[in-house]
Parts: sequence; C-alpha cells; structure tokens
Amino acid sequence: MAIKLKTAICQMRVTDDKIDNLNHARELIHTAARSGAGLVVLPEIFSVPYQTEIMAANAEIFPGPSTSFLSAVARQEGIILVGGSIPERGQDGKIYNTCYVFDDQGELIGKQQKLHLFDIDIPGQISFRESALLAAGNRLQIIKHKDLVFAVIICYDIRFPELARLAALEGAQVLVVPAAFNLTTGPAHWELLMRSRAVDNQLFVIAASPARNHAAKYQAWGHSLVADPWGTIISEAGIAEEIIYAELDFSLITKLRREMPLFLHRRTDIYDLHFKDRKEP
Amino acid sequence: MAIKLKTAICQMRVTDDKIDNLNHARELIHTAARSGAGLVVLPEIFSVPYQTEIMAANAEIFPGPSTSFLSAVARQEGIILVGGSIPERGQDGKIYNTCYVFDDQGELIGKQQKLHLFDIDIPGQISFRESALLAAGNRLQIIKHKDLVFAVIICYDIRFPELARLAALEGAQVLVVPAAFNLTTGPAHWELLMRSRAVDNQLFVIAASPARNHAAKYQAWGHSLVADPWGTIISEAGIAEEIIYAELDFSLITKLRREMPLFLHRRTDIYDLHFKDRKEP
Repeated sequence: MAIKLKTAICQMRVTDDKIDNLNHARELIHTAARSGAGLVVLPEIFSVPYQTEIMAANAEIFPGPSTSFLSAVARQEGIILVGGSIPERGQDGKIYNTCYVFDDQGELIGKQQKLHLFDIDIPGQISFRESALLAAGNRLQIIKHKDLVFAVIICYDIRFPELARLAALEGAQVLVVPAAFNLTTGPAHWELLMRSRAVDNQLFVIAASPARNHAAKYQAWGHSLVADPWGTIISEAGIAEEIIYAELDFSLITKLRREMPLFLHRRTDIYDLHFKDRKEP
Repeated sequence: MAIKLKTAICQMRVTDDKIDNLNHARELIHTAARSGAGLVVLPEIFSVPYQTEIMAANAEIFPGPSTSFLSAVARQEGIILVGGSIPERGQDGKIYNTCYVFDDQGELIGKQQKLHLFDIDIPGQISFRESALLAAGNRLQIIKHKDLVFAVIICYDIRFPELARLAALEGAQVLVVPAAFNLTTGPAHWELLMRSRAVDNQLFVIAASPARNHAAKYQAWGHSLVADPWGTIISEAGIAEEIIYAELDFSLITKLRREMPLFLHRRTDIYDLHFKDRKEP
C-alpha cells in the first residue's frame, strides 16, 4: 500500500435540520478533500441530533437519502468516506446506529452497526438509555480497500478492549471511531480510551466527535483526535466545529511491531480471544 | 469485606547489595504498616538490581532467604505483603521473575510468575531481552484473602489487555502491578496503561516501581501510582524513594458497575475470551 495516507476528521456541528446537516457535511468534506485528505471521517449521528425521538423519525432504510448522499459525495470528491453514523431502519423494522463507508467510486465497502448500546445512569450527571430506542448489531466487519484495512468502532464500543484487539488481530491498521462522548465521560475517558487502544494494538485511532452544540440536548465532548500507534496524539480538535488533519504513516506500525512485538508475545497458550462466528485468528 | 483498605506502595531504591535491600525493605514496610496500611506492595525485582547476571546469581529456590524474609515481615507487621518480585529458581532449574504474596499470618497466599517476557529493541533508546535469562510462567492466579480478591500482573504483562480483563472476569477488585518501566516506555505509557486497565475493568490498579537509581544500569521510571476504577490517580510518587498511600474504597467498584455496567454489556455472544485452563468465566 501507499505508506502514507492523509486523513481528515470533520468535527461538524449538528443542528436540528437534516437537510442542512447533509449540505453542511458536503461542504466540510469538500474542503477536506481539496486539502488532500484521502480518508474523511464524519462523527457519530451527524445527520440529526442525538435524541431518541428525532433519531426514530429519521431512521432510513438502505439505500436512503443519507446513504445516497454519502455515496455521491465520496465519488465526487474521490475519497474514502466513513459516514460517521446515522439512524438506520433495518429490514427487521428495528433501528440501528449504523456507519456506512464508501470508496472513491461511491461503492459501499463497509457497514457497521453499533454493537454495545450505551445505557448509563450516573445520578446528577448523565442518564442515557440507548437500548430503549436502538437494537444492536451482531458482527464487527473488517473493512478493506486496496491495501488499507480498518474497522469502525462506534462510541461505546470502544470501551470493550476485546473488540479493538480482535480488529487488530484480523489485520486492522486503523480503528475509526465515530463517537459522541458527553461532558462526564469525555473529560474522564475520551483521550485515555483512544490512546490506550492505539498503544495496546499498535495501530492508528481516528476518533470523530460532533462539535459542541450548546443548544443541543446532548452535549458532545468534541476533541476529535488522531492517535498514532505509540499513543501520541498527532492531531486534535477543540470543542467548536473544525476540520483536523493527520498523515497516517503506516511504516510506523511496522517499525513499532518490530521493536516491541506485542503480537508475537501474546500468550495464546494461556488465553484465547476470538470472534464466535470466525475461526481463531 | 471491609469496604475500605489502606494500601501502601514502597517505591524503594534498589542497590547492589541484597542484604541491604532486604533490610531496607523491612524498614519501609514497617513504616507503611505503622501508618495503617493493611496491604503493602514492593516493586518488581526489589532484592537485587535488574541485571541479568546478578539476577541469575541470586535466583532462589522457594523457600529461600527472600521469601522467608517476606513471610516473617508480613507476620510481624500483620499485613498482606505483595513482595514485588524476585528472581526465582524453579524446580526445573529455570529462572523466573516471581511475585510471592504473604498474609498477615506469614502464610503464602499467592505466587505469580511473569507471563510475558520483555524483549524490546528500540534502536538508540532501549534494548532489553528478558527471555535470554528468564522463563515465563504459565498461569494467572486469582489471589483471595478473606473478601479481598486480586491478581498480580508483572510489568510487561500489563500491556496485554486480555490478562487484566480475565482477572476482572474472575473477580479481581485490584490489579497489583510490580513493574519497572524504563525512561522510554515510562513517560510514554506508564500512566496510560495503568489508568486504562482500571477504567476498562472498573477496578483498582496499584502500580509499584522501584525508585530511580541513577547509578543503576537499568533506570526505572518511578511514578508508582494507585488508580481508582474511574481512572483517577488517587496517589502518585515522584522518581525518588518514597512510600505512597491510598485508601481503596471498594464501594466505588459497586457504584461504577451499577452506573455503567460494562460487564453486563459485554457481547459474549459475539466474542469469547477465556483462560485455556479454565472454563469460560
């Protein structure tokens, strides 16, 4: 593969208006592509606010307006587009938090439903019960495009180290994490989780948050970032809307895995970790 | 169990003289116990410098001078003593990096051999090949004393998230980590790894380093710390010799696991992690 890939995160401000959000995403993606990004990432639930009733009303059956839009923009701009996530209406009628990935031809190359639903109740701080609205996916997809191999880990899914580890074992060089942490979990754990998954698995982590929107019901933490396989944050946003860029130098993965060969050192004679629907990696 | 337990880490300076090191450890442990610590932790390889030839020459068959010493001190002081680690000469003649744990009666309640050997080669910074000297253990022990349940994870073992996760799944409330990170991996990853294991597994992490000794061949990072299950560092040392204290409030584990029930949310229908010598947890 090309050893280097420029990536962009569009930390966009999500408003109540879906059409506005899609149009605005198009502008940001266009700017990112013109700046040379070959891999552009949108945040979790970028088309509508992160509110259950609005998400339910806007859930789309594939192909729908949002996915057709993403496909068209990816083709027009000639980029790999990780479409954050949108509320999907599945064939089963249930609603999923789903990421669609399109290549530079506008072809769908990846679809990832959120696997772990965020049910949290910290009295006086944050209470959120995603499972009241959403159904959970059942499979982590390893997404391949030419020599690039990555997985999409949606928000709360990043808290489960099994998933990131398995993605790496299946060849992922990058974890793309569309995520909307809040003002309790964000300052406490956002950077820690992203950096530690990068270090443990010696790969890049691209974490894409919506911008903070003080008018919204759910306040996102922001601070989108790219962490390299040594855990260094090579690009980071603030809380406002912005596009951040980073160059992923994949030779760093090779170098670090040679210098400190964690994957050779795993004691697979002592412990076993595998996807139940796949053979042991 | 008692909901709270005061712990102490003796971040001791390790010299070339084994007798001096043992005597000095006794003084530090005595001070810690008199200050009310019921669980006292020594650093990795505290009896001799972390140098292969010296470790080989001082490897002890159990029971040996160092373990008899640890047992006696634990009994005299009436504490649970996690004896960092010492070079052990196994029944097989091989040398192990081994932690012995004694209860307040001086009884051996835990023995943990390092499972992953630290072979690293970062040109111009650090090159270390532990496997040239040592053999690796084959089992993680869950150590129980009354209602306290913990596991000992020795240094490089902490880099493997499988191990910490499995310890938690088997009931550990605390990971005790005797470890001697160096001046390359320490600033990059010490705090990150300790905090992330605590957050991922919603338990306490007690990380015990030797003090920096500028005269030594292997320079330890220091910065012994205690992280709580939210990832907050509740006590941290500098680089010099000192004893740090922290009160472990186990009700915090219960509270956090109720507020954000990570262990209920694990998708064990998708992935499976288990010890090969034990049934699925």
